Amino acid sequence: MAAAPVWSVDPRTGKQREQVAVEATAREVDEAVRAVHAVRAALADRAVRSAFLRSAAEGLDAARDGLVETADAESALGPVRLTGELARTSYQLRAFADIVDEGAFLDVIIDHPDDTATPPVPDLRRYKVPLGVVAVYSASNFPFAFSVAGGDTASALAAGCPVVVKAHPDHPALSEQVARVLRRAAAGHGIPEGVVGLVHGFEAGVELIRHPLVAAAGFTGSVRGGRALFDAAAARPVPIPFHGELGSLNPVLVTEAAAAERAEEIGGGLAGSMTLGTGQFCVKPGLVLVPSGAGGDRLVKSLADAVAGTRAGVLLDHRMRDDFIAGVARRAGLEGVQAPVVPGADGAHTVGAGFLTVAASRLVGQGAHDLLLEECFGPVTVVVRYADEAEAKAVLSRLPGNLTATVHLSAEEAAGKGRGAEILAELTPLAGRVLVNGWPTGVAVAPAQHHGGPYPATTSTSTSVGGSAIERWLRPVVYQNAPQALLPRELRDDNPLGLPRRFDGVLER
Amino acid sequence: MAAAPVWSVDPRTGKQREQVAVEATAREVDEAVRAVHAVRAALADRAVRSAFLRSAAEGLDAARDGLVETADAESALGPVRLTGELARTSYQLRAFADIVDEGAFLDVIIDHPDDTATPPVPDLRRYKVPLGVVAVYSASNFPFAFSVAGGDTASALAAGCPVVVKAHPDHPALSEQVARVLRRAAAGHGIPEGVVGLVHGFEAGVELIRHPLVAAAGFTGSVRGGRALFDAAAARPVPIPFHGELGSLNPVLVTEAAAAERAEEIGGGLAGSMTLGTGQFCVKPGLVLVPSGAGGDRLVKSLADAVAGTRAGVLLDHRMRDDFIAGVARRAGLEGVQAPVVPGADGAHTVGAGFLTVAASRLVGQGAHDLLLEECFGPVTVVVRYADEAEAKAVLSRLPGNLTATVHLSAEEAAGKGRGAEILAELTPLAGRVLVNGWPTGVAVAPAQHHGGPYPATTSTSTSVGGSAIERWLRPVVYQNAPQALLPRELRDDNPLGLPRRFDGVLER
Repeated sequence: MAAAPVWSVDPRTGKQREQVAVEATAREVDEAVRAVHAVRAALADRAVRSAFLRSAAEGLDAARDGLVETADAESALGPVRLTGELARTSYQLRAFADIVDEGAFLDVIIDHPDDTATPPVPDLRRYKVPLGVVAVYSASNFPFAFSVAGGDTASALAAGCPVVVKAHPDHPALSEQVARVLRRAAAGHGIPEGVVGLVHGFEAGVELIRHPLVAAAGFTGSVRGGRALFDAAAARPVPIPFHGELGSLNPVLVTEAAAAERAEEIGGGLAGSMTLGTGQFCVKPGLVLVPSGAGGDRLVKSLADAVAGTRAGVLLDHRMRDDFIAGVARRAGLEGVQAPVVPGADGAHTVGAGFLTVAASRLVGQGAHDLLLEECFGPVTVVVRYADEAEAKAVLSRLPGNLTATVHLSAEEAAGKGRGAEILAELTPLAGRVLVNGWPTGVAVAPAQHHGGPYPATTSTSTSVGGSAIERWLRPVVYQNAPQALLPRELRDDNPLGLPRRFDGVLER
Repeated sequence: MAAAPVWSVDPRTGKQREQVAVEATAREVDEAVRAVHAVRAALADRAVRSAFLRSAAEGLDAARDGLVETADAESALGPVRLTGELARTSYQLRAFADIVDEGAFLDVIIDHPDDTATPPVPDLRRYKVPLGVVAVYSASNFPFAFSVAGGDTASALAAGCPVVVKAHPDHPALSEQVARVLRRAAAGHGIPEGVVGLVHGFEAGVELIRHPLVAAAGFTGSVRGGRALFDAAAARPVPIPFHGELGSLNPVLVTEAAAAERAEEIGGGLAGSMTLGTGQFCVKPGLVLVPSGAGGDRLVKSLADAVAGTRAGVLLDHRMRDDFIAGVARRAGLEGVQAPVVPGADGAHTVGAGFLTVAASRLVGQGAHDLLLEECFGPVTVVVRYADEAEAKAVLSRLPGNLTATVHLSAEEAAGKGRGAEILAELTPLAGRVLVNGWPTGVAVAPAQHHGGPYPATTSTSTSVGGSAIERWLRPVVYQNAPQALLPRELRDDNPLGLPRRFDGVLER
C-alpha cells in the first residue's frame, strides 16, 4: 500500500496547496519516538535548555514573515491575528526559559535527619525529574500557540522532556516549517536536531499514545478525539498522564443590575468575544445568562446589532464548516429556540456569525435542550434568558466543566455591595478561570494563569498555559541518606545553584 | 436478599470474632457520598480544619490501648508494631495540621496587570481549591497509617475534602472504631460527624469509584484490585484522578566492593528488612542483586543464617497465606532457582520466611523467569547473582516501576570514588525513592518524603506519604480582574493571612 499523502489545503477555496509529507506508519512512529528518546540526555542541563528555548524564540521571530504567510494560507486566520499569535508563542518560549533558569519548578525539599520524629526521619532530598518522551497533539485553531512550538512543547522541553508532535492536518506545511526552526535552535546548542520529532496522520496519533517509550501526552482539541486518546492512554499496560483540553461552554452570567447599568457595552463586548477568530476559540463564550426584562432586552438588541454587522468568515477546514452549519441547525430547531441573527452558511466557503436565544426554563431539567449545553465550535453563542437568580443558578448547576466562567456585575456589586462575592464562589466549581466584567477570549501567558478546568474542559487538574504548565512533565524523586558527594548539585546542602527550596521545613528563596 | 454480614476475623486462628456491620448496598453508598458532600462546606475554614486534625490525633492517642488491641486481634501485627504505627498516624495528622496552617499548599500566585506583555496580562490571582469528595481505599497491611485515619484521609481532610473510606475487610472492627474517633473530633469543632463516611464490602468499593459526586480517589493495595479501580475511574463519563499505590519489587543493588567490605552487615540487614512485619510491606526489598564470587557468597550465607533464625509469622488473612505459599512454590519451581532457606507454610496459620536465588543470566531476556520480576507479598525475597556490571544493569532495565531502589556501596564508593553517582543516576528512572546504604522499609513522614514511583508502584506521579500528598486533592483556579472586595482573603494584595506566595513573579515567604 502506498503511503497516504498529507496535503496542505487552503480553507478559503478548499483546494490543495501542496503535498507536504506522507502519513507516518507504525514503524515510522516507533522510529520517531526512539529517536527523541535516544537524545533525551541532551536536555539534562538546565542552562542548555533555557538557551535552546531562547534561540527557538529568536528563530520564530526571525522567520516571522514566511511562517505567518504559510499559517494564513492554511488556516485563513489572517496575518494580524497570526502575527500576534506568533509573538505570543515566542514570548511563551522565553517565559519558560526564565522558569528553567529560576529553578523553582524543581520543587527542592531537603530534610536533615531527625531522630525525634515518629518514625525517625533520615536524610531526605527531593526534587523533580523529567518524565521522558512527551507526545504533543497540535490544535487546529492555534497554529502557533498550541501547536509544534506551542505551550505543550515549550513546557515539555523546559522540563527536560524530548517531544514528538503529532501535526494537525489543518496546517501540515506550517508544522514542518516550525519544526525546522526548533531543530535549528537545538543544533545551535549542541542538542541533536532529533530532540523534536514530528509525525502526520490520524493513525500515527493513535500509535503515538500507545508507544511504550511515550511517558505523557498533551492535547488540545475536541471532546471526541481527546477522549479517545485519553482512553487509550489509560488502557495502556503502563498508563500515562494525558493532559487534554477538550471542550468548554464558558458560561457568562450577566446580573440584572449589570444589564440595567450597561446593556449596550455588554452586548457589544459579547459580540466581539464570540466572533473573535470566527468563533474558533476554546474560550469562546458559548452560553450567556441574560436577565429577562428591559435591561436584558437592550443587551440582546445590542448583541444583534453588533453581530449582524460582522463579516462572514472562513472556518479552519470544511469539515468544521459542515459541523458548524449542522450543529447550529440542530440547535435552532429545538422548541422555543430563536435566532435573532441566524448563524450558518454564507457563501461557498464562509459562514456568518449569529446567536440563539432560549428561556432558562427550557434548561433546568434534562431533555432535548441539553444539546444547548454542548460546545458548538464556530461563531455562535446561546443567550439564555432567566427570570430570577434561582433560575440562573439552576442552569449553572447543569453545566459540564469549563475552562472559564464569567460574571458581569454592576459597579455597586463590583464594589462589594450585593451578591458579588457569593456569585464568584458559585462560579468557582464550574471552571478553572473566573472572570469579572471581562471576556474569556484572550489567555494571558503569566505565572498565575490557569487554562484548564473540570472535565471535559481538561482531563487533568493542570494547565496548558502559564508557568505551572511545566509541572505536567515532571515527577518527584527523593534520595535517602545519599552522601553529599553523590548527590545531584540541586540537592546539596550548600545550594551551589542558588535554587529556591524548602530546607528543614523552612521556605528559602 | 439479606444484607451480607461483615465479620471481624482473627488471622491467628481463622475464626470469626464478631459481626461488625453489613456490606453497603448501592443505595447506601449513594447515601454515604451524598452525606459527606452535603457537609463539605464545614471544611472550608483552614483554622477549623487544622484544629480538627489535631483533635483527631489527640483522639487516636487517647484511645490507643483499645485501638491497638482491636488492630492486633484483626491483623496479628503485634502490639509493638501497631503502637508505633498508631503514633506515626497521629504524628501524620499533626503534620498535616501544620501544613494547613502554613498555607504554602495553596500555591498562591498573583500577577498584576502588565500591558507590555504579549498578549497583555490582566489582573490574575490563582490558588488551589479542594476537588470535592475523596474516596479512600484502606490497605490491609497498615490498619492505622494507610487506613481510615491514614495518609490519604489526613491529606484529603487537610485539603478541605470530605472523605468516604472503603474499609479493608481485614480490619472492619478497627475501621469502625477509628471512624468514631474522627467523627468525635469533627464534632468538637462544629464539623458535622458525617464528614467522614465509612462503607464495607467489595461491591461498595466499586460503586464508590463510579459515584458522580466522588471527585478523586486514593488507594493502597494490590496491582489487580488497584488496576480495576483505576480503570473504572478512567472509564467514568467524567473521569477522576485515581492515586493508587499498587505494587513494587523495590530492587536492591549491592556493588562488588560493598559485598567485599561488609557482606555480613548487608546480609543481616536484608534479613531484617525483608522479614519485618512478616514481609508485608509495600517497600519490602523483593529483588536483590548480589555479585557472584566470594563477597556475595558471604552475604548470602549471612542472609541464610539470619532468615533461618526468624520465627514463623501470621499473615494478614488466610487468602494472603494461600497466595504466598502458591506464589513461592511457582517461583521456586523455575529452572535454576534455589531456596537456601525455604519460605512457605509452617504451622496451620503461620508461614516461615525464606529466600530464593537465581543467576542474573536467567533474567536478562523475556521468559518464564519474568515471574521473579513480580512482587510476591510476604516474607520472601529473590537474590539475583550477577557476574558483572553489565549483567546487573541488564536486569535492572527489565524491572517494572518501583516505590524504591537501593544501592549498597563501599565506603570509598560512597565517598565519591568509583561509580556511585552514576549508579544513583541509573536507579533514578526506576523508582520514586532512591536509598544509599539503607533499607527501604520504614517510610518517614517528612516534607521531602516521596512514596510513589513509576507504574505499577503508583498510578500517578504523586505521593501518599509526606507533605506534598495534599496536592492530590486540589485543583488551581484563577480569578481575572476580580475586585479586591470580592476576592477570597487568600488572594488579596495586602495578604491578610500572611501566606507564602509568588507576587508579580517574585517568591515571597
